[in-house]
Amino acid sequence: MTRKTENRKVAIIATNGVEEIELLSPANALAHAGFTTCIVSPEADQVQSRNGTHVSEWYDTDVQVSAANVEAFDGVLIPGGLLHMDALRANADVIEFVKAMANAGKPIFAVGYGPQLLISADLVSGRCMTSASSIRKDLMNAGAEVSETAVVVDGALITCRNVDDFKQFNEAIVTALQASLAEPVAA
Amino acid sequence: MTRKTENRKVAIIATNGVEEIELLSPANALAHAGFTTCIVSPEADQVQSRNGTHVSEWYDTDVQVSAANVEAFDGVLIPGGLLHMDALRANADVIEFVKAMANAGKPIFAVGYGPQLLISADLVSGRCMTSASSIRKDLMNAGAEVSETAVVVDGALITCRNVDDFKQFNEAIVTALQASLAEPVAA
Repeated sequence: MTRKTENRKVAIIATNGVEEIELLSPANALAHAGFTTCIVSPEADQVQSRNGTHVSEWYDTDVQVSAANVEAFDGVLIPGGLLHMDALRANADVIEFVKAMANAGKPIFAVGYGPQLLISADLVSGRCMTSASSIRKDLMNAGAEVSETAVVVDGALITCRNVDDFKQFNEAIVTALQASLAEPVAA
Repeated sequence: MTRKTENRKVAIIATNGVEEIELLSPANALAHAGFTTCIVSPEADQVQSRNGTHVSEWYDTDVQVSAANVEAFDGVLIPGGLLHMDALRANADVIEFVKAMANAGKPIFAVGYGPQLLISADLVSGRCMTSASSIRKDLMNAGAEVSETAVVVDGALITCRNVDDFKQFNEAIVTALQASLAEPVAA
């Protein structure tokens, strides 16, 4: 059997301070490819994005992270943003959700500072990755093999440096999700 | 001979986004103890502090970091603030200045996220430290022995978790500076 193609959902982990373009650009690409995107957040109702150092639009939380079910999602996107990422790293429910997605073999996509959450979840050792330049030292110290290339695909883990890489990153995450959904699934 | 006690200066590394209270509280304690504090910054003229997520007052740069002379300073304070710290980590002149201060055996004091700069400068391996909770994993991965206590004194390296620790931290940094100035100095 193959996984059903309807109701294919990608979780986007976000909290206040998420960088708006890092939320919207991949989300739009995923929607264009037929995926439903769901904001999974520690916040019960809404998250306020940022545009650099300025606050920007509010986005509704679709699923509070403490209630998020790994089975409901086909992949997870971790956009960046310093304030958002700092709050996510400190949240045990977020760490648990990301670990559970990884343990279930679901594709994980991270932009810019997103890999900081993967460090906190002990998911980077031995993986090939890229990130925002200022945290690459932290990734290396955590055991990752760090590249300065725009987009790094290591199996189901796809990372990019920053917003300049979205054309290639968005194509890569759509391709990875389509490939994972075409794979046979254990009954 | 002992080091001269007049013109005793402490460098405070700061750029835009520095957390205002993390700049002011230790600076006031140092001033009260008779030290001159100098803002050393990548910015030539001024830095804008923040108060949590809000921008706050501007402070004049005393010495641009590219022109900072290690010999002119008796110690260095690294206040926190996510945006400020992210910019400092990416600045080669800042990294070089902190490394040179460490190599010269000058006391180094870091608050909250301040230890991120010490990770980037390869100065934490084997050191006992504390920090903001969300970056302790990064410190451990970089080889530090990380404590959750309020203030950690490891020789000339003094770190604290956050603003709640300032009473003890400020006393510790003044004591450390006074002790270092009382030591004989090689001619």
